[in-house]
Amino acid sequence: MTYFRRNIERMSGYTPGEQPREPGFVKLNTNENPYPPSPKALKAVRAAVGKDLRLYPDPLATKVREKAAEVYGTKPERVLVGNGSDDCLTMIVRAFAGPGGRVAYPTPTYSLYRTLCLIENAKPVEVPFPPDFALPPKLARARARVTLVANPNSPSGTFVAPADLSKLARAMDGVLVIDEAYVDFAEQDCLRLVRRHRNVLVLRTFSKSFSLCGMRIGFAVGREELIDGLMKVKDSYNVNRLAAEAAVAALDDVDAMRRNADKVRATRARLMAGLEKLGWFVYPSQGNFVFARVRPPHSARECYEQLKRRRILVRYFDAPGLDDGLRISVGTNREIASLLRNLREICAPCA
Amino acid sequence: MTYFRRNIERMSGYTPGEQPREPGFVKLNTNENPYPPSPKALKAVRAAVGKDLRLYPDPLATKVREKAAEVYGTKPERVLVGNGSDDCLTMIVRAFAGPGGRVAYPTPTYSLYRTLCLIENAKPVEVPFPPDFALPPKLARARARVTLVANPNSPSGTFVAPADLSKLARAMDGVLVIDEAYVDFAEQDCLRLVRRHRNVLVLRTFSKSFSLCGMRIGFAVGREELIDGLMKVKDSYNVNRLAAEAAVAALDDVDAMRRNADKVRATRARLMAGLEKLGWFVYPSQGNFVFARVRPPHSARECYEQLKRRRILVRYFDAPGLDDGLRISVGTNREIASLLRNLREICAPCA
Repeated sequence: MTYFRRNIERMSGYTPGEQPREPGFVKLNTNENPYPPSPKALKAVRAAVGKDLRLYPDPLATKVREKAAEVYGTKPERVLVGNGSDDCLTMIVRAFAGPGGRVAYPTPTYSLYRTLCLIENAKPVEVPFPPDFALPPKLARARARVTLVANPNSPSGTFVAPADLSKLARAMDGVLVIDEAYVDFAEQDCLRLVRRHRNVLVLRTFSKSFSLCGMRIGFAVGREELIDGLMKVKDSYNVNRLAAEAAVAALDDVDAMRRNADKVRATRARLMAGLEKLGWFVYPSQGNFVFARVRPPHSARECYEQLKRRRILVRYFDAPGLDDGLRISVGTNREIASLLRNLREICAPCA
Repeated sequence: MTYFRRNIERMSGYTPGEQPREPGFVKLNTNENPYPPSPKALKAVRAAVGKDLRLYPDPLATKVREKAAEVYGTKPERVLVGNGSDDCLTMIVRAFAGPGGRVAYPTPTYSLYRTLCLIENAKPVEVPFPPDFALPPKLARARARVTLVANPNSPSGTFVAPADLSKLARAMDGVLVIDEAYVDFAEQDCLRLVRRHRNVLVLRTFSKSFSLCGMRIGFAVGREELIDGLMKVKDSYNVNRLAAEAAVAALDDVDAMRRNADKVRATRARLMAGLEKLGWFVYPSQGNFVFARVRPPHSARECYEQLKRRRILVRYFDAPGLDDGLRISVGTNREIASLLRNLREICAPCA
């Protein structure tokens, strides 16, 4: 006998990338930023470590909403702050889809989308990307209450033009969520679609470009009606006091983020060139990671395992359509040089 | 036309106690601890503010599980760490109840329980406490998938004997959640029921006795089968890196917490005596707050408003059965002396 709901009993949880507990690994597996957060953000956090931690955070994270509105040219009322953008995703699936509700997304993509559907007992409607990772036209006809598009997409790194997403928003009935976790490494973004469409939510996170994974903070931008409703589903005090301080200070120092993003983009170009030189097929990436198909006779799993033995972690997905590739986060130039050197050794033709 | 599920559309969100944005208020409204967190916890947090914030937290918060297991005499596998114990409550309602699932709890109690049911479209089964706030026998017959008992209860502050909860656990079919947010201010606790019953979950938080509201961290203790299933419903990285550091260091300095809890208990006795002297009915409290019924001709709302004008915030619940009382958090001796002085002025018979 089980106490759990049947859908929970049946499912397995989301599998996060390995987080090695021992030091000494080059971590290129969970798309963390190789550069530290803004010193101003760290300073703001340090200054907030004190007796006031005995007090609850502002349940609305007002200062973060105000600062995000200022930086991104929107209104505070259009911003919902989450314990990471994953928290916003959870709120979205709970508020709009519910059990049996259709949730569409192009695949392969961020595997949490499926997990969130299973938890909620919602119906995942998976629409395969075409080989070039353009937006599948079928998405508009999926009759979904929620459509999730990661843009740039993970693990492919590919980017869909904002104009295509705008067309999709107009063509569909439900809510279109554009998950821009990686957008600061891309050339364009979709924030302006919030002004144009009442059914668009754009997600942002401080985890990637702002180097604040460990602080768990992200936000959603959308029309007031959407944000107000999502607020009902939010945990009352979902955002840590120090996370709010970090976010405000990081937004105050957005240039530091942009400089790091530029460095990541430059290294990304080297990584892509290096992998292509190995003969691998590399998708054009606008994220801080690259997805590449390993060239036979080597297998992706073998490369992953050999790299791990050499204390370099990359992400291998044991799933159809992905299991011949590796997703490699863009580290520092030095880390990527070491990765490429090791891959050349691993893939060298036997002497 | 709305994009939201009907149950979300119909409900209103949880109303947290006021968090004044200007300083200068004596805050006796959200049961925060008047004393600062352990200096060792603050030191540990400060030490962790650095470049590693670019990395994700351990998704399982292993160090917190290990330390909690050591301090509370259980196994790490029996501990689930949440973004506050509210996060654990959310996971519980999602994992066990689901839409239409019965969730029973004695009322009046923590109003978030109802909110969580409404979000999930679960069926709240509210069983009124008898006037003395003993455990209602009807709870055992509520045929609920989840039964929630805050012990000490809020807002009453009353405490149910562990033996009564043990009997309830045996008599019922579903999961019994004993929410011990305030238990460090009480004389007993229910952790041992986890060893005795496979359907018991005990919730703890660092927000109250450990003075770490702002860090959002709490945990659930239960049998491995329950914890493993709840893990599936957990946000993958639900606990902030700094929150985990704070929790481990706070548990390492549990004596500091106990000293503060002793001070709170001593002040609680003064507060209870002072309110009784005003002729108010005061429930026996084992929490860090006191619920008292205001003596006519004065009204609770009037006292609340007059106190607020004097920059003292207490909690007034505009709900049947509660609207003739105030819930007052135990502050410092000085804050409580000021509260009582102000109440005496407000309630003085007209000259």
